[in-house]
Amino acid sequence: MRNLKLVIEYNGCHFYGWQKQEGKRTVQGELEKALSSLLNEAVCVEGSGRTDRGVHALGQVASCKTESIIPLKNIKGALNNLLPSDVRILKVTEENENFHARFSAKKKTYKYVVQVTGDRPALKSDFVAYYPFDVDLEKMREASKILIGKHNFKGFCCADTTVTDFEREIYDISIFKRNKIFTFYVTGNGFLYNMVRIIVGTLLDCGRGKLSFEDITLALVNGNRSLAGKTMPACGLYLKSVEYPADKA
Amino acid sequence: MRNLKLVIEYNGCHFYGWQKQEGKRTVQGELEKALSSLLNEAVCVEGSGRTDRGVHALGQVASCKTESIIPLKNIKGALNNLLPSDVRILKVTEENENFHARFSAKKKTYKYVVQVTGDRPALKSDFVAYYPFDVDLEKMREASKILIGKHNFKGFCCADTTVTDFEREIYDISIFKRNKIFTFYVTGNGFLYNMVRIIVGTLLDCGRGKLSFEDITLALVNGNRSLAGKTMPACGLYLKSVEYPADKA
Repeated sequence: MRNLKLVIEYNGCHFYGWQKQEGKRTVQGELEKALSSLLNEAVCVEGSGRTDRGVHALGQVASCKTESIIPLKNIKGALNNLLPSDVRILKVTEENENFHARFSAKKKTYKYVVQVTGDRPALKSDFVAYYPFDVDLEKMREASKILIGKHNFKGFCCADTTVTDFEREIYDISIFKRNKIFTFYVTGNGFLYNMVRIIVGTLLDCGRGKLSFEDITLALVNGNRSLAGKTMPACGLYLKSVEYPADKA
Repeated sequence: MRNLKLVIEYNGCHFYGWQKQEGKRTVQGELEKALSSLLNEAVCVEGSGRTDRGVHALGQVASCKTESIIPLKNIKGALNNLLPSDVRILKVTEENENFHARFSAKKKTYKYVVQVTGDRPALKSDFVAYYPFDVDLEKMREASKILIGKHNFKGFCCADTTVTDFEREIYDISIFKRNKIFTFYVTGNGFLYNMVRIIVGTLLDCGRGKLSFEDITLALVNGNRSLAGKTMPACGLYLKSVEYPADKA
């Protein structure tokens, strides 16, 4: 049995998210359709994690097992010919039998893009979020340090979740500004439901002076969702990359 | 009666085009809804022309009449608060009673963006078209000169049209290349249905060597749609600007 690793880019705009759902257009569904057709067998694709409706990916990772003997070098091109124009395979490699896109993942980085004040970016409405208040970049950078490290992120998770273990580790949060566009990169060992969108909302609310450093610390310590900032919309969010033990840094 | 001119940006991706249609989400429909609510009267909006489903605008122009006494300087902000995030008013001015977005228009410029060869731009699938063959930029620039001027563009019009006068004047076609991205700007006094998309398809087909300069001349002279190149998809097309007699160049 061969074990394939796929690196995937997609525009989340016309998908009901990553996860396969009966009667809905999803990334996992489109991938399984294309792979099953190419490999001539029923193929199950495992993603590194789900992305919600409207969330994009620059480097989602998926794995799948196959009995097919198709040469590795032919798979990427053939799959891209079968896939719709809004999802694209960037890379295909063959991994050992233990590799699993979700269970083997070591680190994930999400990118979040938001325009702060000014006229809303109508043309890019599916790719750039909007925040109507001026924010202080240095204050947000300072606030982000509170979140770095291993914490119980219950206060930064959508209340509507079945998860019971809320401990996650954030390795890094970087924030860049170019004109009115702020870009956040959040790297961690894993993320709870809506966690990146709530982290960005909390940092923005702090940057505009609505939340203090103490409020953020309290949201973290008390695990109370209502103490953190608002959940930013899906459109600004991109799953940038997923790292695995064997990957070079 | 006041006569307003609106300059509008939109992401065409989630609209069934410009023109109002019962039960469909259209740009004209959203604008009329927002204007009627703001001005507290039934407002009819006239666009400089229709754009198809999936076509974007950087500077569509519309006009509307109103009895409202709302100060001009308040209209843009108030409208933008009422409009959905994928359509945005860039500018509102008051014109004389004879101004009409369609009938007064003197020149229109469309922009077309296409990636030539390489992996399809999945993330930008709604904003950049794709052409799988290598093309010669200088050859396309040369071919574009054949189309400049006043011609009968029947051969460059979707067969499915009710128009009977096919004469249009093209003032300029400029083509730029940056890596694999080619950008076309086409300026004319007016355009037939699908005309820009067919012009770009014809120039690309010429650039790859599938059509000769003679083929393009023949398509123009004979008015036979089947002699011109293919119709490029809506996603790469942007209505860039509309000029009026009073506008400064």
